[in-house]
Amino acid sequence: MDDLVKFAPRPTGVGEMFQVLRDGRPRTRADLALLTGQARSTIAARVDLLLASGLVAPAGELSSTGGRPPATFAFHPGARILLAVDLGATHARLAVTDLASTVLAERHEAMAITEGPDQVLEWVGTVGAALVEQAGRSTGDLAAIGVGLPGPVDHSTGRPTNPPIMPGWDDADVPGRLRHLLGAPVLVDNDVNIMALGEHRTEFPTVDHLLFVKVATGIGAGVISDGHIRRGAQGAAGDLGHIAVARAADVVCRCGNTGCLEAVASGRAVAAALTDAGLTARTSADVVALVRSGNLEAGSVVREAGRTIGEVLAACVSMLNPSVIVIGGNLADAGEHLLAGIREVVYRRSLPLATQHLRIVASRTKGRAGVLGASAMAAEHVLSPTAVEGLVP
Amino acid sequence: MDDLVKFAPRPTGVGEMFQVLRDGRPRTRADLALLTGQARSTIAARVDLLLASGLVAPAGELSSTGGRPPATFAFHPGARILLAVDLGATHARLAVTDLASTVLAERHEAMAITEGPDQVLEWVGTVGAALVEQAGRSTGDLAAIGVGLPGPVDHSTGRPTNPPIMPGWDDADVPGRLRHLLGAPVLVDNDVNIMALGEHRTEFPTVDHLLFVKVATGIGAGVISDGHIRRGAQGAAGDLGHIAVARAADVVCRCGNTGCLEAVASGRAVAAALTDAGLTARTSADVVALVRSGNLEAGSVVREAGRTIGEVLAACVSMLNPSVIVIGGNLADAGEHLLAGIREVVYRRSLPLATQHLRIVASRTKGRAGVLGASAMAAEHVLSPTAVEGLVP
Repeated sequence: MDDLVKFAPRPTGVGEMFQVLRDGRPRTRADLALLTGQARSTIAARVDLLLASGLVAPAGELSSTGGRPPATFAFHPGARILLAVDLGATHARLAVTDLASTVLAERHEAMAITEGPDQVLEWVGTVGAALVEQAGRSTGDLAAIGVGLPGPVDHSTGRPTNPPIMPGWDDADVPGRLRHLLGAPVLVDNDVNIMALGEHRTEFPTVDHLLFVKVATGIGAGVISDGHIRRGAQGAAGDLGHIAVARAADVVCRCGNTGCLEAVASGRAVAAALTDAGLTARTSADVVALVRSGNLEAGSVVREAGRTIGEVLAACVSMLNPSVIVIGGNLADAGEHLLAGIREVVYRRSLPLATQHLRIVASRTKGRAGVLGASAMAAEHVLSPTAVEGLVP
Repeated sequence: MDDLVKFAPRPTGVGEMFQVLRDGRPRTRADLALLTGQARSTIAARVDLLLASGLVAPAGELSSTGGRPPATFAFHPGARILLAVDLGATHARLAVTDLASTVLAERHEAMAITEGPDQVLEWVGTVGAALVEQAGRSTGDLAAIGVGLPGPVDHSTGRPTNPPIMPGWDDADVPGRLRHLLGAPVLVDNDVNIMALGEHRTEFPTVDHLLFVKVATGIGAGVISDGHIRRGAQGAAGDLGHIAVARAADVVCRCGNTGCLEAVASGRAVAAALTDAGLTARTSADVVALVRSGNLEAGSVVREAGRTIGEVLAACVSMLNPSVIVIGGNLADAGEHLLAGIREVVYRRSLPLATQHLRIVASRTKGRAGVLGASAMAAEHVLSPTAVEGLVP
């Protein structure tokens, strides 16, 4: 019977009660009884189990007008730790965080994804273990590992699927290898999805519809709709870089097609345009440096790239009706030029109903969006009702 | 305390157990114990409550090798009825269905939405009551009413928000008036969302990511992602008709902008193009008649409209990665010309990962997508765990 899998034995309810405490606010047993409608005796038993798991800790006593003051309890994010791994094409950022994604130890290093899964994951294992120690914890405290990769990932298996810039990684068992090295469950997604998640969870937790756009060497997006990442049928949702734009009609993209957004508005394309104009720019970072130095030509080219990205985002606004669009990736470090170009076109091009409350903002988490999102993805796995059931004694 | 609303008193579990039976398969008490992990005594009590509500009925006895054969129980969709209302600009279709969206009585009539909410909703009340009677039921059996409107709707309140082709309807209390007339809760959404829902629930229930595109007088889409309609921040998601396309660069749209898809590829635009070419076509229906009569010019213009729609859908495929795109609306009745144009561009334009398993098909529910979706929307409301709790004695 297929549905046996779907309807697993009914949990004890401890995991669901934990969700009420997950916001971190201290609550009394009476609060919990009121919030869940459960009997006091049930509440007492569940609080005891959560205290024993360490996920919940005493949070002091309320002042009282008489009699014994009631004790309060709250989520204890330090009960376990998470390893967050953000692997880019040429750099990696790793962090050990608590269960609320507070960073306890962090490292940012040059790393070439082209060295292949054996070497890169071995290195992640070594650096990860060192960071755990640096945070004053042991790998036994590690509840889960979240990983972002610079290419398409089958989120359900955690394996990359034909990633264009990751030779040797196709179908690599990333979760299996990291679990073997560090002894914790592993969640994997592509880098833009975890950036979207990191920005959403830390900066816009109450926004239901958010689009995170990474403008770097390439261009991609993470789609959050009704509060959750939407990955689509093959995990390919948010692949903005190869949407056609009129301005690129005759330009051949590295994907083989013509007309792609990435071919004219990515960090690589902007650097090439500035080189053609006689300036020295090989990377997005070079472009940002030129813009920041006050070079007018660079500012103007970045603004025009923003307008072109705006054409595609206007279509996304019509399609998805987000209330926030966050622009990240290293070309966003060029400051207001990129955003100004994007805003100009989106606000002109989309219907009033969809833009009346729309905000288009620069990433606030900057280089940390990826690790914060990898940590949030791991935390969601560890703190789900079902997972919490497994953590109580 | 804000979260009191969120964490309502814990239900008795009857509503959740009903979800297991909702697929209609007969099950024994032992099956239910196995599927839910609950004690036999709990199961017995809940089955009794569901039998008393009428939502579940005895479904015969299993054959047995000895002893008393075990009784089975199944969802009884005839326990209550739903009224499904699909209001277009110039036509309306109403249906009375059971809780599984099987149509029991139906009417399709000319109706002008421009007559305003007072007249139109009064008429819906009268026709609705007549259909209930025609189905051999009474309005007391009506569990909910689902309504689709040809304009933007705030789904949470059920009120239209500045609908362009519905004078007098802005912020009209559609749920309040229909509830007053027919005495049942009312759910409202825009017509394309309910068409997407109708197509999804009846023809593609196992597909998680589906896009329903209506090509009629205007062009719009309903987005289903991870199995649910995604409406966006203002309920404006899926508004394809005003996305810019290169071919329309100089064409002024009725929205006031230039370049909109609708201005060159809608039924209205195609009819205008054929009129300019010396043919007689005022509406989508005229276009369809011309194509079906074998007129080559009409077929060619419809195919070109398909290509233009395909440009926008290629962007949607990159953005949302659906596995099915359903083309509906009356211009889709022109047959393969429209789909051929769409397929041609989408399969050329999108990345292989997103198109390898993508199907682009004509609507299978045809004119009934709207009422089937309105019924499904109402059924989802009535059969949710919380709502079922309210129906048991």
